[in-house]
Amino acid sequence: MTQKAIFYHAGCPVCVAAENRITEIIDRGRVDLEIVHLGDMPGRIDEAEAVGVKSVPALVIDGAALHINHGADLSALR
Amino acid sequence: MTQKAIFYHAGCPVCVAAENRITEIIDRGRVDLEIVHLGDMPGRIDEAEAVGVKSVPALVIDGAALHINHGADLSALR
Repeated sequence: MTQKAIFYHAGCPVCVAAENRITEIIDRGRVDLEIVHLGDMPGRIDEAEAVGVKSVPALVIDGAALHINHGADLSALR
Repeated sequence: MTQKAIFYHAGCPVCVAAENRITEIIDRGRVDLEIVHLGDMPGRIDEAEAVGVKSVPALVIDGAALHINHGADLSALR
């Protein structure tokens, strides 16, 4: 069974570094990873906030938000 | 080629939640994951600090520290 994970970022250096690390360790056979650039897709900021994302980069797995280091607060992206 | 990753934690609820998420998405075929409880192994706090870990839980991959949410500052574990 694959599970869904969403990596939210905003293209910042901290985001890119975290994205590179996460994408290299994740098991793509079991995890369906979607990468969402909130700067390009501001319409998805509400969705991220609804599952508890407060800053980017963040990885959401099974509806749980993991904030990975700190690039920018979500509020700064609106 | 497998790569080495170390997950540092201190047994806190935030740590355990993050550990569960990370261990379920990581590709164990490519990543050699070591879990280090710094409360049980305070002798390894210096090693964590040396690679840039400032708080737990944190995942270190290729010498880069990813702080995942925030359980406790490293200084609180000494």
